[in-house]
Amino acid sequence: MESYKGLSPSQFFYRNREIAGFSNPVRSLYQAVRELLENSLDATETHGILPEIKLEIKPSNNQNDKITIRIEDNGIGIPITEVPNVFARVFYGSKYVLRQARGVFGLGVKMAVLYAQITTATPIYVKSSIESSETEYEYRLFIDIEKNLPIVLELNVRKKRKKWHGTIVELTIQGNWPLARRRIEEYVRRTALIAPYATIRLITPESSIEYKRVSRKLPEPPQVGKYHPKGVDIELLKILIRSADRKMRLLDFLTKYFDGVGKKTALNFCQWAGFNPDHKIGRLTLTDLEKLSNKMHVYNKWRRPKPLTLSPLGDTLLKEGVKRILEPEFVTAISRPPSSYGGNPFIIETALAWGGKVPVSDTPMLLRFANRIPLLYDESVDVSRKIIDAIDWNVYKVKFPAPIAIVTHICSTKIPFKGVGKEAIAEVPEVEKELNIAIRETARRLRRHLSRIEKMYEIKRKEVTISKYMDEVTRALAYILNNDGGETIIKQKLMELLKKEIKRKAIVRGGIKSAAKAPCSR
Amino acid sequence: MESYKGLSPSQFFYRNREIAGFSNPVRSLYQAVRELLENSLDATETHGILPEIKLEIKPSNNQNDKITIRIEDNGIGIPITEVPNVFARVFYGSKYVLRQARGVFGLGVKMAVLYAQITTATPIYVKSSIESSETEYEYRLFIDIEKNLPIVLELNVRKKRKKWHGTIVELTIQGNWPLARRRIEEYVRRTALIAPYATIRLITPESSIEYKRVSRKLPEPPQVGKYHPKGVDIELLKILIRSADRKMRLLDFLTKYFDGVGKKTALNFCQWAGFNPDHKIGRLTLTDLEKLSNKMHVYNKWRRPKPLTLSPLGDTLLKEGVKRILEPEFVTAISRPPSSYGGNPFIIETALAWGGKVPVSDTPMLLRFANRIPLLYDESVDVSRKIIDAIDWNVYKVKFPAPIAIVTHICSTKIPFKGVGKEAIAEVPEVEKELNIAIRETARRLRRHLSRIEKMYEIKRKEVTISKYMDEVTRALAYILNNDGGETIIKQKLMELLKKEIKRKAIVRGGIKSAAKAPCSR
Repeated sequence: MESYKGLSPSQFFYRNREIAGFSNPVRSLYQAVRELLENSLDATETHGILPEIKLEIKPSNNQNDKITIRIEDNGIGIPITEVPNVFARVFYGSKYVLRQARGVFGLGVKMAVLYAQITTATPIYVKSSIESSETEYEYRLFIDIEKNLPIVLELNVRKKRKKWHGTIVELTIQGNWPLARRRIEEYVRRTALIAPYATIRLITPESSIEYKRVSRKLPEPPQVGKYHPKGVDIELLKILIRSADRKMRLLDFLTKYFDGVGKKTALNFCQWAGFNPDHKIGRLTLTDLEKLSNKMHVYNKWRRPKPLTLSPLGDTLLKEGVKRILEPEFVTAISRPPSSYGGNPFIIETALAWGGKVPVSDTPMLLRFANRIPLLYDESVDVSRKIIDAIDWNVYKVKFPAPIAIVTHICSTKIPFKGVGKEAIAEVPEVEKELNIAIRETARRLRRHLSRIEKMYEIKRKEVTISKYMDEVTRALAYILNNDGGETIIKQKLMELLKKEIKRKAIVRGGIKSAAKAPCSR
Repeated sequence: MESYKGLSPSQFFYRNREIAGFSNPVRSLYQAVRELLENSLDATETHGILPEIKLEIKPSNNQNDKITIRIEDNGIGIPITEVPNVFARVFYGSKYVLRQARGVFGLGVKMAVLYAQITTATPIYVKSSIESSETEYEYRLFIDIEKNLPIVLELNVRKKRKKWHGTIVELTIQGNWPLARRRIEEYVRRTALIAPYATIRLITPESSIEYKRVSRKLPEPPQVGKYHPKGVDIELLKILIRSADRKMRLLDFLTKYFDGVGKKTALNFCQWAGFNPDHKIGRLTLTDLEKLSNKMHVYNKWRRPKPLTLSPLGDTLLKEGVKRILEPEFVTAISRPPSSYGGNPFIIETALAWGGKVPVSDTPMLLRFANRIPLLYDESVDVSRKIIDAIDWNVYKVKFPAPIAIVTHICSTKIPFKGVGKEAIAEVPEVEKELNIAIRETARRLRRHLSRIEKMYEIKRKEVTISKYMDEVTRALAYILNNDGGETIIKQKLMELLKKEIKRKAIVRGGIKSAAKAPCSR
């Protein structure tokens, strides 16, 4: 006879913690840092606050594999009543809405809390305050794994002495700092690249690195949006109908609950799909819902999803970020117009950096981001790598080894990840196309830059060559002109002539550049 | 202001169904078939029943992407009161105990039910009966995703007309049969390889394939075991202490709740770790538990974990399975003694097939299994592939292209999967070592086989060569012996001599084989 039993969500993830990245002391430490840093960024930039984040990693004195992580941000803070659930209850949070967000499964920090609890038996420490509140509060929390509920070990509330808002979190987990170190440092570095408006300090036993913000401009935060009709399924229809008035007409339901559906579009769709626009939604049967869902998927005259739910960085900020981290000689960036796949809006942004401190390598260095999260694993199967490897870089005057780096960033309410690891972007044709356009455009800009430099060198070379003969020509001219004492003046005039001519050349080169534009853009 | 909310487990997996393999219509169909087939095997073989399984895949007549999957087994059946929860409640089941089991996360069939519900709006149909019951019952179920509870749409109970037990399940999901077909057929084929005692029929629109059982022997089913002391964490200690008498002494706690811990071992451990063996477990503080957990991890004098929780196939059955599916000319199999990593027992089994219907390829074909589940994805990063590719096959007389296939099977209460995809085994040193020993041993056996064949050919060649001169020798002998009419007799005698000599050679060859054994085994 079998015995059956139920598990709480905490128990499930306690048993399957590798799903959330907590598989071993190296990866777990990396993962915990990620969750904390991403939470802090979301608590600031999404709410119009310039992030000011301090991240400390402190291995314990007597036990090498016991690591304390402490993070401090100037975010909006978490309401006192929400803190226990947000930190110590699996499947609870603020990310379950339709908009671009950091984080992978929305499991987030709970997994780090659970991991701390089972490896070092230490509770999470949280101190927080929201702007409008006059108090600040400190919690120490465990998770009751069997019940999936927070256990409050300690709660202190006191009046704020100075005006502040934000959150401080401290966690102690089993980890392997020496092995996780490089990944974590790289993660913070790349985060600093994609968030040039953030000041991030990383304090470790070995060093204290500060990435000071290079811009005070924040990208427009994403808004919570409606679903696109192409993205529905039967369950979603049921949920929306349940939340609506049962007597609502199908026509009104479509226009009210879906992205970019006006009255005319809704009417056209109903006619095409064979639905009565006046049908009360409360009376739709399951068969109706299945048909409705199928037809909504197939209909090809919906408007494109609106990108209001997205928050691209923009080319200027992206360029700033790249300069701050890679310190190249040349950088260019592109933020493409919104596109979509299967009802999900997305935006592609890319940058290309050349020379300066960009390391020289045999193939372009690639830095990938999804919704402003750096992707560090599985580069070899990412669609960006595939596109870059398929490009004949000779066409763009790049001869390897070369100091070239490419940054790709995809924003979407649903990032098309490949597999469950969520570290590589899949080859969705719409995404591939956008990436291809953007990467090739930056490559063309690089070619123009390299041509310009070539030309400059050529002119410089001519100038040097001509200058060499200047004395002789001056002497000859003075002789011919019978002007023995005027050599200095003649030489000066000749030099002026040469400079003028060089300048003219350079301008013509500028003209060549503009002329070259047309045949290049495909 | 942020708004916070909770999700039910069903809602979480509804949003993150790719975790359980339900990412697109191809993969989802494959995954649903897997879940159903694995459940049926677990309901039979684990309980000493020879599996008799019928699996049907029926695309809908009018809609190509609507597929009905129906499975029928002769398993133990599911008690009437458990059916709704087992099929329509996430995090509920019989697999949450410590023993080898099929299935990946224990999410199992619920995800298929959820997927059916959201893509085709059809409930799951379940008919079941247990042996001791006089009734059979039919259910139609949905999942209430918001509450994570079953919705019973229909329940019929009636007296059984004939004596049967087992379960019939029918599901209709959105799927892509043309694209999933090959994978599913291969999955069933490999399942038939690893379960030679099972009769499995696969009925599809194109064909009806029956894998008839080739053995009536079932491997010993796994038992539910105790945890090994090396595998604990603080949470597990807390759970075990909660379930025990708080006044129990630490000494008794260790011997009662852990695998292979006798009184002497427990005493030695307590002394080494600095614990009082008479300490009441109810009075252990969190700091004590952390120390206890750490010490239990580090102590290196525990006995090896007992393999009672495992259920290897054994070399005979494995050979039968390989013969049934690959139909090779030569096959050999090994079932290694139990080993362990980090407190988890495991057993490695491998087989090698050569010639016959094994396809010829440039590198050994690899068929991987974990707890009797075929692994079809991510072969390139699996530790078995790594080992096979590192072997110099010339040593074993294998020249590619060659008709060679290798089967690897790992049984464990905790399969060391690589990543979240759970399709490849990681490079755990203990596992790697066992695989290496087993694969090389089968390779040596192949070499012996190939040597034997070579020798045979050589002898055969000699026989043919000598036979060519037989007539001439006969004539000469007859002349010398002055026995003109006796040529026939002489030739006959010579032939007898030759045959005898060839036979003697063949026996000597056998001797060579045994002699060669020693230097080969490392």
